[in-house]
Amino acid sequence: MDFKNKLLTKKKKVDEVLKQYFPPKTSLHKTIFESMSYSINAGGKRLRPILALEVCEMLGGKTEDVMPFACAIEMIHTYSLIHDDLPAMDDDDYRRGKPTNHRVYGEGIAVLAGDALLNLAFEIMLGKIISYDFGDNRGIRAAYEIAKAAGVNGMIGGQVVDLESEGKKVSKETLEFIHLHKTSALIEASVKAGAIIGGASKEEYKALEDYARSIGLAFQVVDDILDVIGNEEKLGKKVGSDMQKDKSTYPSLYGIEKSKEIAKNLITRSLEVLEVFDDRANFLRELSKYLAIREN
Amino acid sequence: MDFKNKLLTKKKKVDEVLKQYFPPKTSLHKTIFESMSYSINAGGKRLRPILALEVCEMLGGKTEDVMPFACAIEMIHTYSLIHDDLPAMDDDDYRRGKPTNHRVYGEGIAVLAGDALLNLAFEIMLGKIISYDFGDNRGIRAAYEIAKAAGVNGMIGGQVVDLESEGKKVSKETLEFIHLHKTSALIEASVKAGAIIGGASKEEYKALEDYARSIGLAFQVVDDILDVIGNEEKLGKKVGSDMQKDKSTYPSLYGIEKSKEIAKNLITRSLEVLEVFDDRANFLRELSKYLAIREN
Repeated sequence: MDFKNKLLTKKKKVDEVLKQYFPPKTSLHKTIFESMSYSINAGGKRLRPILALEVCEMLGGKTEDVMPFACAIEMIHTYSLIHDDLPAMDDDDYRRGKPTNHRVYGEGIAVLAGDALLNLAFEIMLGKIISYDFGDNRGIRAAYEIAKAAGVNGMIGGQVVDLESEGKKVSKETLEFIHLHKTSALIEASVKAGAIIGGASKEEYKALEDYARSIGLAFQVVDDILDVIGNEEKLGKKVGSDMQKDKSTYPSLYGIEKSKEIAKNLITRSLEVLEVFDDRANFLRELSKYLAIREN
Repeated sequence: MDFKNKLLTKKKKVDEVLKQYFPPKTSLHKTIFESMSYSINAGGKRLRPILALEVCEMLGGKTEDVMPFACAIEMIHTYSLIHDDLPAMDDDDYRRGKPTNHRVYGEGIAVLAGDALLNLAFEIMLGKIISYDFGDNRGIRAAYEIAKAAGVNGMIGGQVVDLESEGKKVSKETLEFIHLHKTSALIEASVKAGAIIGGASKEEYKALEDYARSIGLAFQVVDDILDVIGNEEKLGKKVGSDMQKDKSTYPSLYGIEKSKEIAKNLITRSLEVLEVFDDRANFLRELSKYLAIREN
């Protein structure tokens, strides 16, 4: 199977499992399930769960063992987008071509839907750990890595500095802090969770950590570039929104050409660290290259 | 030591440990720590962590074993208040006599501080489970009970129905749903977590579950009553705010006298179910009575 098909197959598998967590409800509080489900099914690429699945499978781990962790990460990612889009934060009306959660359900429900997705992520992981014998504490270790990456010293830390930097010209160090925390941390945690559940050796874990750090940052640099030169239709949102909001980005601090070079170097680095693996890592190699040339 | 002194001693112990989670920071993202710490230290009664501690200790469990779970519950409670107070939700300017989080730090930071407290709760529990050998899976079981109680089928479910019911006259069933989910669920989880970590037998667990359900609902009914006839200075907020917001409450559906009777019956019930315990449960008995006559 070629890379694009394999990517799509994995995405569909994640989509299917995610749907099972949001069955149609008739209860008093059904609105919140609709709101959570709306954003979960709003067309995400599923990059993070795909990474967790692939890394685990590559190491010989079972898909069903890592799946709850993969879905939990996608829920955390989705909640962060819902809250990021709120009027008090980025104030975005559209995300992936669809009205943002608070535009459909109102701000109050959007806040609660985000909260509920974050909480559900932990419910799902703890539920898996409680009902299934991993033979050691790998389930807890994976959940702990995800918790740290999502928290105040990870993703949320990046969101805070991003929020406080709006309208200011920030240093290159601050911009790297924002990107490494706001975006990379959870991408890294996806790879780590896959590695832990898949039973990676110390050497394998180290290499995968390096890989994740490189593609995580590359992903965000490419995002910044696409916001300047991307195709609006493919992106599902207006280009130039960072500039309009006076957000510091790689292109605004380094220029487009230098930003492209930074992204390219990060991708090269990600391929180098995968050398400890044989052909098993081919999908991850393809994924690196794909992230560099993606259009949305 | 009399009851009030024991209560105060426990509260101080919780206060001290909670403070340790928010050391002063000089990092780029220090604002979020200040904002989290502001609400954590805004004068909460610490009812939930005190319950978890007391139940665990009463059963012969160690304080340090249950403390991270007790603090996690207080963080979840605090995050829910920060989000509840937001303009898009209850739109409250004051809480316990102090400006609400978003009035001090702005709405964006308040959303993130709430998110960060919820996430930190799980980080702390998972960190304890990973670093400490409980000898069985009681740490995970306690964390799972807390996760379920805080989630979409617990506290958040209650918040959703509460939000959607504003300005409407609701049925008694809906009001009970709101109170049981929005308030009772986390109080119940506090008792359950203490019982699980303390190693409760099946019979003890069942009794404590019953106890928690009764005081949880009683707590909220008394809250409703205080909002009508309470002392503003002692409450730290204006009375009549439920009525002003057209919120259905026990007094608005049943009248004050009947509401007082309901609270009294719940307290009586909570004392009855404690009969399986000997003198060990005296503190819990006193706590029940105290909740019925509290003034804030």
